[in-house]
Amino acid sequence: MNSLTALAGTVHGGTLYGIGVGPGDVRYLTLRAAALVGAVDVVAFFAKQGLQGNARRIVGRVEMRLEYPVTDEIPAESADYQCQISTFYEKTSEALAGLLRDGKSVGLLAEGDPFFYSSFMHMWRRLETDYPIEVVPGVTGMSGCWTRANVPITWGNDTLAVLPGTLAEEQLVERLLLTDAAVIMKVGRNLGKVRRAVEAAGLLSRALYVERGTMEDERILPLAECRDERGAYFAMILIPGQGRRL
Amino acid sequence: MNSLTALAGTVHGGTLYGIGVGPGDVRYLTLRAAALVGAVDVVAFFAKQGLQGNARRIVGRVEMRLEYPVTDEIPAESADYQCQISTFYEKTSEALAGLLRDGKSVGLLAEGDPFFYSSFMHMWRRLETDYPIEVVPGVTGMSGCWTRANVPITWGNDTLAVLPGTLAEEQLVERLLLTDAAVIMKVGRNLGKVRRAVEAAGLLSRALYVERGTMEDERILPLAECRDERGAYFAMILIPGQGRRL
Repeated sequence: MNSLTALAGTVHGGTLYGIGVGPGDVRYLTLRAAALVGAVDVVAFFAKQGLQGNARRIVGRVEMRLEYPVTDEIPAESADYQCQISTFYEKTSEALAGLLRDGKSVGLLAEGDPFFYSSFMHMWRRLETDYPIEVVPGVTGMSGCWTRANVPITWGNDTLAVLPGTLAEEQLVERLLLTDAAVIMKVGRNLGKVRRAVEAAGLLSRALYVERGTMEDERILPLAECRDERGAYFAMILIPGQGRRL
Repeated sequence: MNSLTALAGTVHGGTLYGIGVGPGDVRYLTLRAAALVGAVDVVAFFAKQGLQGNARRIVGRVEMRLEYPVTDEIPAESADYQCQISTFYEKTSEALAGLLRDGKSVGLLAEGDPFFYSSFMHMWRRLETDYPIEVVPGVTGMSGCWTRANVPITWGNDTLAVLPGTLAEEQLVERLLLTDAAVIMKVGRNLGKVRRAVEAAGLLSRALYVERGTMEDERILPLAECRDERGAYFAMILIPGQGRRL
């Protein structure tokens, strides 16, 4: 390592740090994130019941496990899900606020980047008017996936659409037809529908399925060869752009 | 710093490293990028004539300056531009290949992420069949911008469109109407047109103008208050999503 690490900075008590921990490979933590993980009073992370939690696996150190009451067992659109999760977020933000009032520095881990589809955002919106917060951007999961798949995603003036696999099939097709490159997130149980939409948009030959990109058990294959009806929770589909090569 | 830095890894002679250096703030280099910048035989970077080069400014150390013969002085769509740039990329890739054949490890810096709209990609496509290449993903410029603007960009099932400001005004409007969140890149001389398109799509009140996000001289203001006809080269427009708050 060189002197750049000396620039990684300081930690303040009573501050919440939203720490992007990147796509999975620990080498893709930023200098700032690595410094904070080692220096904050409390490291907190969200995890699914019964699982270790990916953010925890990435950084190693953890003191406060925030366990979702429910994740993908019931549809995120149901009133039951939304009620359970809202209550959980409310209680969790109160617990974090208690630590901050006690003068503790708290690092809340976020997989990828904290302001890009993260649970951290639900804490941020509850706490940001009353407590100092520093957000540390991270390498997104999608960057990790296209790096490991060895495909530049956008060239020249390509447009990129980031789409959740939860969209209806016809919406997916419509959006795919109107973009040069695409990333489809939240594939999971939507894989069958997503594959049909990609094929209907005439993009199946360019599409890649990437599961747990940059993690030890990553899996990358052409979508056309991925015949599962259900994908992994951390799976996404990449459709690289074909813009200007110079 | 903690023991995570020990994981940052090794460097091999004869290998090209595409090093994402993040959005500007040196603390947002990844551990892998910081280790490589300090350890490769040659650090190379692209720069505009007469300017220092942002990637260089971020990491400090540089031995090989690759100066574009032309950047935004003439339209990127013109035959003249494309001819000059293609010739430049061809010669540059030959120079890099010479270093690799001599057994040197070469780190080519890329602002943001190397597989997301970078010049590195034009070297990668010329060299990747004949030389070992490692790509190190980076925090994108857009992550840096939405972090500093203090706006989560996508919530719940929001879709995100990344659009170049070079699109025609009516295309911009069409794409903006069909997305929840948007990032408009390459604003520069397209700022007037981009503002009109954002306004026509009814999104002006949500749009932010961010120039050189995370750099020392960053500038962030509502797009509605940014009256310049021409933006900075490193400017982008952010339109945050309004998806599910739980």
